[in-house]
Amino acid sequence: MPLVLDSDDVRQACDMAQIIKSVEDGINEQAQGFVEVPMRQNLTTSNGFFRVMPCVMTRAGKMGIKVFNGSVETGVRYIIMIYDEKTGELLSMMDAAYLTGVRTGATTGVATKYQSRQDSSRVGVIGSGLEAKTNLEAITHVREIESVSVFSPTKRNREIFARESSERYGFPVHAVSDPKKAVSGADIVVVATNTTGHADNIAYYGDWMEPGQHINSIGATGGHLREIDPLTFGNANRILVDSYAQVKEESGDSAAALAYGTWDESKFVEMPALFKGVTCRDDDNQITLFKSVGTGVQDIVAAFAVYEQAKKLELGVLVEDFMEHKIF
Amino acid sequence: MPLVLDSDDVRQACDMAQIIKSVEDGINEQAQGFVEVPMRQNLTTSNGFFRVMPCVMTRAGKMGIKVFNGSVETGVRYIIMIYDEKTGELLSMMDAAYLTGVRTGATTGVATKYQSRQDSSRVGVIGSGLEAKTNLEAITHVREIESVSVFSPTKRNREIFARESSERYGFPVHAVSDPKKAVSGADIVVVATNTTGHADNIAYYGDWMEPGQHINSIGATGGHLREIDPLTFGNANRILVDSYAQVKEESGDSAAALAYGTWDESKFVEMPALFKGVTCRDDDNQITLFKSVGTGVQDIVAAFAVYEQAKKLELGVLVEDFMEHKIF
Repeated sequence: MPLVLDSDDVRQACDMAQIIKSVEDGINEQAQGFVEVPMRQNLTTSNGFFRVMPCVMTRAGKMGIKVFNGSVETGVRYIIMIYDEKTGELLSMMDAAYLTGVRTGATTGVATKYQSRQDSSRVGVIGSGLEAKTNLEAITHVREIESVSVFSPTKRNREIFARESSERYGFPVHAVSDPKKAVSGADIVVVATNTTGHADNIAYYGDWMEPGQHINSIGATGGHLREIDPLTFGNANRILVDSYAQVKEESGDSAAALAYGTWDESKFVEMPALFKGVTCRDDDNQITLFKSVGTGVQDIVAAFAVYEQAKKLELGVLVEDFMEHKIF
Repeated sequence: MPLVLDSDDVRQACDMAQIIKSVEDGINEQAQGFVEVPMRQNLTTSNGFFRVMPCVMTRAGKMGIKVFNGSVETGVRYIIMIYDEKTGELLSMMDAAYLTGVRTGATTGVATKYQSRQDSSRVGVIGSGLEAKTNLEAITHVREIESVSVFSPTKRNREIFARESSERYGFPVHAVSDPKKAVSGADIVVVATNTTGHADNIAYYGDWMEPGQHINSIGATGGHLREIDPLTFGNANRILVDSYAQVKEESGDSAAALAYGTWDESKFVEMPALFKGVTCRDDDNQITLFKSVGTGVQDIVAAFAVYEQAKKLELGVLVEDFMEHKIF
């Protein structure tokens, strides 16, 4: 009897603290060898992509798949289905548009916890969309934030972001008209943009990096998308990634860094390694970068957290199980 | 507003003639280069598998995915989701347990049309489950069948199969107690078994092959499953497959033939090649084999055929579109 959760249900059932913990636990399960999460399959449609991200977690007893299609230009539809890994029963199907933004933020939260300076208090944000919001939210869960500056090309958007965030968190959030000014003096930077296919549309430059800074870049998740320049990779001392193979293969930013010769494999740490004692910042002066494209394990554990919360809050619609269990 | 179809709806909406035509058209689309159908992803769960088969058909404007989990031993749950390939809209979610059996039969129908002798009239069936039924049904659509013999290890099962098939098609169907007797003198053989993991549990031997015969083997779709022996590959003059890479990699029968040295690559033809003028039978004396494991294109075109038929018959439940179209 699967629980169908629409976008409103999912929004209500998203608890960022819970999802950060779920993502951290999920990556730890991955580190311990109890997770199968193959490279996602990217199929090409007439107007965009059709992407498939399955994941099986044997010890946690969780499995599922995210299926999404469209393009950054025309919009994307996301669905996640989660199953009881032991019995094979479908537990829930949910709209995963908002959830994808939340789990991306939560993953940045985990990265920022391990990679930013402990005393980080100032955040610079480039972008004002859903991911900019969820990334900032997650960061407030892992560091004591005192002030934020935000840049977004549209004045109205950055001002709304500043007002809403300031009201929500109780610390000052300044909208600024220059991206460099937004990140100058920041301890933690978020680059969360939706640059749509323009190779010259770089939102953040490595020239702007300052000693001790930690930068999260979570956009540019397709080969034709860009948001950070090659020098961002070059100037970072340590680079954390959610999936080395996928970040290298899928992001237009990575392709540019590889082409410009600023991709140094020895700088990279993959998130599961954090749970095996590998560090991703050696001292307070290092510049660190987190670059993510999203993995199936993030989606599945976030969806399970939403499912549990939705049951508590009695959200969604239980539909009759329309899947026969075929016995041979 | 996706249409949810449960197993009863799907059964009612399955029209074999339509699905054979859909599978044939789909493989033709594949031959013309308008289909992306990657190798299916097989993940391992605590008690079986979690499999994912996406497919995008750009010219036909169809796309979708089959997701199924479980094992032959404990049972399997199947779901197919189909989308409008142009708009990205989810059109339908359906139980695909029965449909998988039907599309497997339909694909055998296409193979038998191209590979069996035109004057084939006698069919030998080994197996009495869903796939044995759908395979026989499909064969009656492409050849003028006059009589059938069926073997299944359980007397009751083969007798029920014989009685029901005879009533349905109007030709004699004999239940026999010996598999060799079932296929002796047959023009077309169907091997559709669910041998569960016993390496010695071979249902059909190449020794039994007769000149001019055409054999369809559609079971043994996992590495630990078997139904035909290595000599079946060795004695066949031409071998048709739905996906060369998948048949070679996924079937326990293929692994055995490779190990025994009876796998001769030069004998193989992949189904799409049929639509580019390649033949899979050169004369009436050749022995031909069709070996399939199932591909995403078969699933998606079959699901679209069911969806269209279900709309005509006003079956299923339209559910509110719970997937937000996220605009960036």
